[in-house]
Amino acid sequence: MNQAAGSDDRNGGERNYGARTVLVGTPVVPGLAYGPVIFASGAPDYRIDPDARIDEADRAAEAERFTAAVATVADRFAARASASSGTAAEVLTATAALARDRAWIGTAGGLIATGIPAAAATVTAIDKISAMFADRGGLMAERVTDLADIRNRVVAQVLGLPEPGIPLPEVPSVLLADDLAPADTAGLDPARVIALVTRLGGPSSHTAIIARQLGIPCVVAVAELARIDSGTTVFVDGDRGVIGVDPEAGPIAEAVAEARRRAAEVAQWRGPGRTADGHPVQILGNVADGASARSAAALGILEGVGLFRTELAFLERPDEPSVAEQERLYREVIEAMGGAKVVIRTLDAGSDKPLRFVTHPDEDNPAMGVRGNRIVATHPEVRDHQLDALAAAADGAGAPVWVMAPMIATVAEAREFAAQVRGRGLVPGVMVEVPSAAILAEKILAEVDFVSIGTNDLTQYTMAADRMSADLAALTDPWQPAVLALVERVGAAGAATGKPVGVCGEAAADPLLAGVLVGLGVGSLSCAPAAAAAVGRALATVTLDQCAAAAQAAVAADGPAQAREAARAILG
Amino acid sequence: MNQAAGSDDRNGGERNYGARTVLVGTPVVPGLAYGPVIFASGAPDYRIDPDARIDEADRAAEAERFTAAVATVADRFAARASASSGTAAEVLTATAALARDRAWIGTAGGLIATGIPAAAATVTAIDKISAMFADRGGLMAERVTDLADIRNRVVAQVLGLPEPGIPLPEVPSVLLADDLAPADTAGLDPARVIALVTRLGGPSSHTAIIARQLGIPCVVAVAELARIDSGTTVFVDGDRGVIGVDPEAGPIAEAVAEARRRAAEVAQWRGPGRTADGHPVQILGNVADGASARSAAALGILEGVGLFRTELAFLERPDEPSVAEQERLYREVIEAMGGAKVVIRTLDAGSDKPLRFVTHPDEDNPAMGVRGNRIVATHPEVRDHQLDALAAAADGAGAPVWVMAPMIATVAEAREFAAQVRGRGLVPGVMVEVPSAAILAEKILAEVDFVSIGTNDLTQYTMAADRMSADLAALTDPWQPAVLALVERVGAAGAATGKPVGVCGEAAADPLLAGVLVGLGVGSLSCAPAAAAAVGRALATVTLDQCAAAAQAAVAADGPAQAREAARAILG
Repeated sequence: MNQAAGSDDRNGGERNYGARTVLVGTPVVPGLAYGPVIFASGAPDYRIDPDARIDEADRAAEAERFTAAVATVADRFAARASASSGTAAEVLTATAALARDRAWIGTAGGLIATGIPAAAATVTAIDKISAMFADRGGLMAERVTDLADIRNRVVAQVLGLPEPGIPLPEVPSVLLADDLAPADTAGLDPARVIALVTRLGGPSSHTAIIARQLGIPCVVAVAELARIDSGTTVFVDGDRGVIGVDPEAGPIAEAVAEARRRAAEVAQWRGPGRTADGHPVQILGNVADGASARSAAALGILEGVGLFRTELAFLERPDEPSVAEQERLYREVIEAMGGAKVVIRTLDAGSDKPLRFVTHPDEDNPAMGVRGNRIVATHPEVRDHQLDALAAAADGAGAPVWVMAPMIATVAEAREFAAQVRGRGLVPGVMVEVPSAAILAEKILAEVDFVSIGTNDLTQYTMAADRMSADLAALTDPWQPAVLALVERVGAAGAATGKPVGVCGEAAADPLLAGVLVGLGVGSLSCAPAAAAAVGRALATVTLDQCAAAAQAAVAADGPAQAREAARAILG
Repeated sequence: MNQAAGSDDRNGGERNYGARTVLVGTPVVPGLAYGPVIFASGAPDYRIDPDARIDEADRAAEAERFTAAVATVADRFAARASASSGTAAEVLTATAALARDRAWIGTAGGLIATGIPAAAATVTAIDKISAMFADRGGLMAERVTDLADIRNRVVAQVLGLPEPGIPLPEVPSVLLADDLAPADTAGLDPARVIALVTRLGGPSSHTAIIARQLGIPCVVAVAELARIDSGTTVFVDGDRGVIGVDPEAGPIAEAVAEARRRAAEVAQWRGPGRTADGHPVQILGNVADGASARSAAALGILEGVGLFRTELAFLERPDEPSVAEQERLYREVIEAMGGAKVVIRTLDAGSDKPLRFVTHPDEDNPAMGVRGNRIVATHPEVRDHQLDALAAAADGAGAPVWVMAPMIATVAEAREFAAQVRGRGLVPGVMVEVPSAAILAEKILAEVDFVSIGTNDLTQYTMAADRMSADLAALTDPWQPAVLALVERVGAAGAATGKPVGVCGEAAADPLLAGVLVGLGVGSLSCAPAAAAAVGRALATVTLDQCAAAAQAAVAADGPAQAREAARAILG
C-alpha cells in the first residue's frame, strides 16, 4: 500500500538522480543523505559447543567472569540511559533492569555451577525466559527483542568479542535495519550514521523519534528494504520517503551539498519564532527530565518547554515516587528553563505503559483503554500527589507553569481537572488527542486556559489506525485532511475564546506542516529540540497569509500526498 | 464513574417507587420491569471424588457415555446457533466447534481409559486446555468462559444433572449476572425472563444486543450488583439505568402497567416510518442470514434491511466459501425481503474476528488494526469473490441491492471501493464508523451513492474508548455530544449532495435518540427488528421541527445525560 501510494505520489519527479532501483516508504525526518549502506547486526559471530564443560576447579572463576560481564552490559545500558532522554531513556532503563533480572541470572549461574561455559549458559537461560515472555504475548512478547540484545551483548563480553549492535562505520554511512531498538540508537553518532532506513515502524515509531532527535534523514516502513545489497551506495530523501540505489555520483553529491547549505542556513536560525511578516509563533521543546531540559535550553533558540512528559519519574518504579521526589524532578526542569514557559503533562500511564504500583486491567485495545487522566476513576491519589508536587515545584519558580491532562474526552473531565489544577494555583489545560476533545474544543476551552494538540494520538484515533502498525503507516499520517480539519476546528475555537492553542505531537517537527498548522490557528509548536531550528527557519520564510492559504489547500486536499503538494506549492 | 454520573444525572427524581436501595448502571434497552431476581448459575452442583476409579470392564461404556454427552452438548450449541442470528449465532457456532475440539476430547478419553470417571476426566481435560488458553492471553483467554461453560454442561450431562446456565424461573423474573454468554442468552424466553442486569458490559456488549433482540429492559455496568440479595424483588428501569431493590408494590405495579400500555401501543405500530407531520424515515432491520431476514420480514413493519452483516458465511470456516455458496446465502436474504431494499455490508474481519483461511497479523490494538476493508491490501481476492457473489445474487432480484464497505477512512478508499462495486452493476456506499469518514463525509459522498453511520464503532473511536470495556461505558455512549456533532456533519453532507444517510448502529434502536438522529439529517434507521416498532412509534408522535430542535439541543449539551434530558424535554 505504501509502495503503491509512493509510486503514484512521490516517484514521478526528476529527483531520483539516476538511481538504478527506487524504494518508497513513509518519510519521517526530512533531509537528503548519500553514502554506503551498513546493516544493524544482531548476534555476535560465535559458535556454542554444546559438549564443552568447565573443570570443577575453574567454575568459580567462570561464574565471576559471567557476573562481571552481566554487570558491564547492564551498566552500559544504564550509562546510555543517562546520556539519553525521553522515551529512549525510559526504554534503556527498563533494559538495564532486565539485564540485572535475577530470574535469568540465577538460571545461568546454576548452569555454570554444573560446568556449562558462561556463553552457553547465557544463551540457554535467556532463551528460556524469552520463550516464557513470547508465550505471554502482548507487551511481554515485545521484550523478547530486548532479551536477545542482552544475550548478544553478554555473550560477546564473555567471549571477548566486540560489542554487537550498530557497527561503527569508517565513513559516513546509511544505517539499514528491520527496526531499531533504543539500545541500538542511543549511541549513534550523527557524523558517522547520516540516515536511518527501516523496514518496519511508522511516523511516530521509536526509530522516527530517535532520528528526529539526532536530526538525520529517516524513512520507515520500506517494505522492500531487503532488495538493497550490502556494499551498495544509496541516497535517502527524507522529504519524499524515497531511497535510491546507486545514484549518479555527480548529481546526488550536488543535491546533498545544496541540502547541506540549506541545513547550515537552518542552523543560523536564532528565534524567536516569527513568520516573515512578524506573526509570532512560539517554538518550544519536548523534554522528559532535567538533563533533556538543560540540553534544550543550551540550544538558546527555544522560548520554553511545550511538553514535559512526566512518565520517566513513574515507570519501572516498584512504589509511587514521593511528593518530595517528584517535586525535585519537576523543579529541575523548571529551573533548567530559567524563567521560560514550561507546559507539564500529568502522567500518561495505562495497561500499555503500566505502573508497577497500580493494578491495570488487562485490555484488548489498551490504546483505547483506561489510560492518561482516566486512571483517576480508580486511583485519584496518583494524580493528587502529582499535582501537589507540581504546585510545590512551581512555587516561587518565577516562571509560568502550565499543567495539562492527557486523554481528555469530555467537557466534564476538563472541568474536573481544571478545578483540581486551579485549586493549587496552577494554570490548567488539556491535551487534545481524543477526536471528541477536538470536536468539543470551544466548550473545553471555556473550562481551561489552554489546549495542546497531540497529533500522534489524535491521528490514530481519527483514522482508527494504530500508530505503531507498519501496515497502516499510510493512514497514520498527520497530513491526513481529516486530522487537519480537526486541528482547524481547535484553532477556530482558540480564536473564538482568545485562548492559546499549541501542537506538541511529532507533526510540529515537520517544517512544511508547521506553516499549515500556523495557518490553522496554532500559536505554538513544541517538538524535539533538534528539530526546532528547521521549523523556526521555515516559518521565517513565509507570511501568515501564505500559511492560511496553505492550510485551506491542505484541508481541502483529497489525501495526505495531495495535501503536502498543495502546501509545498504555496509555502515553497 | 458510572455510579457517580448516575447519582448526579438520573437518581434525583421521584421515580424510584420507594426502593430501599437504588443501584445505577448504563441503560441499554428501555422499558420498565418488576419481579423477583434470579442469578445465572455457572457450575452444576456436583463433587468430584479424586480417588474414584472405573473398573477396567466398565471403561468402554464410560467412554461411550462421555462421547454421547459431548455430542449432546455440542449439538445443543449448534441447534441454538441455528435458532439464533447475528453475533449470537457466530459465537454459538464457535462454541459448538470448541466443544468438539479433538485436543481436549483426546485428553479426557485418555484419562477415562486409565479408569478416571468421565466427569473428573472432563474437568481435568478442560481445565488443562483452559490454562493454556489463559496463558496465551488476548482473544484466546476470552474463550476460557466458553470452555467453562462447555465443561459444566458436559459434566451435568454425564452425571444426569439438569443443564446448567440460566435457571428456568416459575414466575416472570429479573435475571442478574456478571455477564452473559451467547449460549446463556440464546434460549431465553422473554415471558419468563423480563429484564437483564449485568455487572459488566457496555451499550454495545453482547448482553445488550441480546436484550434488544428480545425486547426486554436491560441495564449493564452495574458496579454494585453484588449488593442485591437472592430472594429480593427489584424494578429495572431501562430508560434511566436504575435498579431499585424492594420498591413499594402498589406504585411500581401501576408504573409497570402504564409501561405495558405504552408497549401495547408500540406493538400497534405498522409503518412505514413517518414523523407526525409526514416526513418519511425508513425503518429497516439488521440481519445476519436468511433465517433472521425471514423473521424480520414476517414482522410486516420494515421497509427493508439496512444492515446485512455477512461475517456468518466466513467465520469458523477452514476455507473461503465458494462464490456459488456465498451467492446462495446472499440470495436467501434478498429473496426473504421480497423486493424491498437490502443494504449489504462486505466482510468485516480482522485479528479480533479472524478468518481461518487468512493470516492476520498479531495486533496490540485490533480494533484499530487491519480489519474491514483494509484486508484488501493483502487479500484483495476475498473481497473480489464476495462482490462477484453479491452481483450474482442481485442479478434479477428485482430489488435495490446496495453494497457498503466497513472501516473506510479516506476518500481514496471510498473511490476504489465504488469503482469495484459499480463495475459489477451494484450500488456502492460506505460505512461511516471511522471519525475521518464523518469529517470527510461530503467528499466521500461525492464518490459513493449512500453512507450508513455505524454508531458503535464511530463512538468508540471518537471517544478513544473501547466499546467492550465496562470501565469506560460512560464514555462509549452514542449520546455523547461529540458523536452527535459528527452525525450532524454527515447529515449536512447528505443534504448538500442529495444522497441518503442512514444509521445502522445500536443508536438506531433508541426511540428517543431516533428523533435526534432524524433531526440531524438521517433518513433511515436500521436496528434489531424487535426494536423497530418502538422507534417507528416514537417518530410518529413528533414533528420534524421538534426533531431538529431536539438535535440542536442534544449537540449543544454538555454531556450525554444532559443531551438525553434536553431531547426528552422536546420530544417527550
